[in-house]
Amino acid sequence: MSRFFSSALSGIQPYTPGEQPRNAVYIKLNTNESPFPPAPGVMDAIQRKEVQDLRLYSDPSASDLVASIAQACGVSPEQVFVGNGSDEVLAFAFHAYGENGFVGPDVSYGFYPVFAAFFGIPYRQIPLSPDLSLDLAPYGSTRESIVFANPNAQTGLYLPPCEIEALLRRTDRPVIVDEAYIDFGGESVLPLIRRYPHLLITRTFSKSRNLAGARIGFAIGDAALIEDLNRLRFSFNPYNLNRLSLLAGAAAMRDDAYFRSCTARIANTRDATADALRAMGYSLTASRANFLLARSPRLPGAALYEELKKRGILVRHLPDPRIRDSIRITVGTDTQMQTLLDAVRDIEKEASHA
Amino acid sequence: MSRFFSSALSGIQPYTPGEQPRNAVYIKLNTNESPFPPAPGVMDAIQRKEVQDLRLYSDPSASDLVASIAQACGVSPEQVFVGNGSDEVLAFAFHAYGENGFVGPDVSYGFYPVFAAFFGIPYRQIPLSPDLSLDLAPYGSTRESIVFANPNAQTGLYLPPCEIEALLRRTDRPVIVDEAYIDFGGESVLPLIRRYPHLLITRTFSKSRNLAGARIGFAIGDAALIEDLNRLRFSFNPYNLNRLSLLAGAAAMRDDAYFRSCTARIANTRDATADALRAMGYSLTASRANFLLARSPRLPGAALYEELKKRGILVRHLPDPRIRDSIRITVGTDTQMQTLLDAVRDIEKEASHA
Repeated sequence: MSRFFSSALSGIQPYTPGEQPRNAVYIKLNTNESPFPPAPGVMDAIQRKEVQDLRLYSDPSASDLVASIAQACGVSPEQVFVGNGSDEVLAFAFHAYGENGFVGPDVSYGFYPVFAAFFGIPYRQIPLSPDLSLDLAPYGSTRESIVFANPNAQTGLYLPPCEIEALLRRTDRPVIVDEAYIDFGGESVLPLIRRYPHLLITRTFSKSRNLAGARIGFAIGDAALIEDLNRLRFSFNPYNLNRLSLLAGAAAMRDDAYFRSCTARIANTRDATADALRAMGYSLTASRANFLLARSPRLPGAALYEELKKRGILVRHLPDPRIRDSIRITVGTDTQMQTLLDAVRDIEKEASHA
Repeated sequence: MSRFFSSALSGIQPYTPGEQPRNAVYIKLNTNESPFPPAPGVMDAIQRKEVQDLRLYSDPSASDLVASIAQACGVSPEQVFVGNGSDEVLAFAFHAYGENGFVGPDVSYGFYPVFAAFFGIPYRQIPLSPDLSLDLAPYGSTRESIVFANPNAQTGLYLPPCEIEALLRRTDRPVIVDEAYIDFGGESVLPLIRRYPHLLITRTFSKSRNLAGARIGFAIGDAALIEDLNRLRFSFNPYNLNRLSLLAGAAAMRDDAYFRSCTARIANTRDATADALRAMGYSLTASRANFLLARSPRLPGAALYEELKKRGILVRHLPDPRIRDSIRITVGTDTQMQTLLDAVRDIEKEASHA
């Protein structure tokens, strides 16, 4: 840190992303990417001509991408905001609605408190229930804005729309529902945006649209909220999405059949893998996301992570005390999951002999 | 604006980017893009395989792009920061060093005061001299951080490194020199970073690297400054550059011959166009950038902009009172400039008969 760095920021603890090894020597199950390539239309949309056109700025209104999202989600373009990954979308939402602070669960996406620190916003955490489920009852009684992920990050646990609607009824403060993982088996609160002008939904192309490397996130909500976010976007980086990502995103969003096929395969593989791990004595949350949170019957999370890494499989071990006895496993292909299960079996056998 | 929007931000005036018509019906000389395609290596670097790999996150350390910049600039990777366009780089710099406010010229890149407003930072403007030149004498006597563009935005006027070094000697506050346009004939202050730990240089791939649509900017400075900016990047959007832009940027940076050829052609065309306009009675600043600021002997800037647009040529007319009698013309190809000059001749002839 330099001696010039703003003192208000000096305590900021940057987010630590999962390892991104630059060589493909690992089966990479650590950052919740999709094991499937982007929709075929994405490859068709990015040809030599489009790369040549990189000399020109991108469309600051991102109108084609916005239109593709609006159509797929059954909303109007005025209800759609796009950003450079959902991280940027969430950051703008924190800035826009952080005046009275934010409140969220203690175990969730680790970036929420970091966004708050970035903008100097108080952030209060409410512990999840002992079984790691999210009980919304304690939310909505203060002037803080509310943020949580559904399904929740790290746990994969899911709340049905009726529980979120009950919260929306008892607060008039902004409620941000991060639906990064909704496409793997949850029901979205999307239909509620018409009735609740304080509901903002964030989504990403990184998981269910197989485009983590294109960096596209979006938000859906009342047109007035979207206008707020666009005011911030045009005050920070009006060309926040590059030309090729705009093309990739629109093509991915328009291939509904491929999207449904990929997400259904991941949900099936997830459930089969969870069953197999439970049969080996593992404890798992009932994940509706594209990852599993799994606890070995005998090995600490850190040890299991290391043993898997030795065997060429990268999973995520998170330092949060409430889940550090577990590992988070991204759902890959059936073959990758079979390799993982074989490795786990091997590791547990060794541990039981030790 | 929604009723939830932070009151501290309610007065923010977003930046207005130049028009980006979605159909190529105009000769586009309004946003200082390059008329030349990216380096051939950029097209080679982005093949079907790389588009397929978009399912994976990008390298958060951007190490290959950073290495290419470090090598081209003769610095170490620890002295290089990369962002999603130089707008994001500048935004982080404002946030990092805005504690005591910022000061900059009244006519410059219009985004500086907007970044300040985004982060709630006081921003003070010092008027350019009557001839629109930037006199640094009034800078450096306060605790504010300093920002200016060299060559300056809108005017294209350039300061030699010795004048900037004199400023660096009399202040110990951060000095941000925005060198977006330095590659078209100016001498960079790059060699000064070794001696002045409070000098931060920002650059962009949008102009001289023919990659406006890839959204890549960078900063060069003392390693401690770069560490500050990376703290902010990892607290806002660690994957701020997408996979394809990382590839495009590294390939563009490594083709020095193409870069030199494109920038030299633009500088030549700029000077020839300026001479031709002066011969028609136009007043121009001595631009060292890839644009000209030109004032008609009889037509107001707004009228000239409109007349050119009618003839299929898009230039920029800026609302700033000190330059609104002029238009800003991006330097295109020789052919485009000939078309522009013919149109100007035609417009002036009509105006003189009216």
